[in-house]
Amino acid sequence: MKKPEFWFSVGSTYGYLTVARLPKIEAAEGISFDWRPFNVREIMIEMDNVPFAKKPVKATYMWRDIERRSVMYGLHPTLPAPYPIQEFDLANRIAVLAREQGWCREYVTETYRQWFEHGKAAGGADNLETTLGKLGHNLNTVIAEAGSDGIAEAYRDATQEARNRGIFGAPSFVVDGELFWGDDRLEDALSWHKTGRVA
Amino acid sequence: MKKPEFWFSVGSTYGYLTVARLPKIEAAEGISFDWRPFNVREIMIEMDNVPFAKKPVKATYMWRDIERRSVMYGLHPTLPAPYPIQEFDLANRIAVLAREQGWCREYVTETYRQWFEHGKAAGGADNLETTLGKLGHNLNTVIAEAGSDGIAEAYRDATQEARNRGIFGAPSFVVDGELFWGDDRLEDALSWHKTGRVA
Repeated sequence: MKKPEFWFSVGSTYGYLTVARLPKIEAAEGISFDWRPFNVREIMIEMDNVPFAKKPVKATYMWRDIERRSVMYGLHPTLPAPYPIQEFDLANRIAVLAREQGWCREYVTETYRQWFEHGKAAGGADNLETTLGKLGHNLNTVIAEAGSDGIAEAYRDATQEARNRGIFGAPSFVVDGELFWGDDRLEDALSWHKTGRVA
Repeated sequence: MKKPEFWFSVGSTYGYLTVARLPKIEAAEGISFDWRPFNVREIMIEMDNVPFAKKPVKATYMWRDIERRSVMYGLHPTLPAPYPIQEFDLANRIAVLAREQGWCREYVTETYRQWFEHGKAAGGADNLETTLGKLGHNLNTVIAEAGSDGIAEAYRDATQEARNRGIFGAPSFVVDGELFWGDDRLEDALSWHKTGRVA
């Protein structure tokens, strides 16, 4: 069976809830997701899906919803986190690079922790220094590699793959060709993986 | 304690999942929600929140998501249901009238059943005839009463009350001043009502 896929963009706020709990779920369930960074911003612009940043009433709700659900999941974010982030593409190009090199899960998990729990915007200098330092990577080397044509192409290709799957937002999950959108559909995705239905 | 509120617009697709299961939940939990019809369409236009009807990729996902979750809830809709509905305001003005007269829950439940399970668009002549017939109301009387200035005003007032609560979509729930958006937050709303937290 094909690995279940976790499609994300570093920069998506609800992504925090998934990123903070997915590694524990993977370990507990013995399931390994393929962590797939892509450019949700590009797809949302194409589809005129307006981000929370431009919707004050929805954004107020979103932060409160994340706060309530963080309590449910035993997480301790400092909210609101800096949003929207300025270095969206850099943060995600590094995720693409990290995936090719086998440290994507660790990079994304630490990036979100620094962003949502320590107020350091994902992709920003402070966050990158702390995150890459903890992971034992050289900041300048990583930034140079993430800026290569090869990574730009892999990032574009991943975004096209996301489009081909009907993905229109992040986080999303794809399990046996079934698309699930939103952190609140992670349980549905897991159920589908295990039983072929939502329960 | 103030009654928990269920804010809906007849015409919202995810409303089907809530309307089809809320009465059973209310009975099982001994909780009575205040069923509040309002004009979500007006609020969405104000906020430039684009409905599924104008988003083909999201709409495809939405129908599949409703289908999967219907199975989970033991529901048997025929999908896709007619959408968007043409007689949105009539369907909701009748809900406002029904609320004043004490038959709102029954009207909304039967309307959605006819719409999602028998293909009769909510607010359309076929649906109204069947629904009002089952409930023992005279079609012409109800349409005349629903068209009155008093009901128009109550509908506007309800929509303003929704705005005041920060509501931007339907279905929504308000419990002790906490807003929950979406059928998938009904469990959070119930938990909040019982324990003051999401669990």
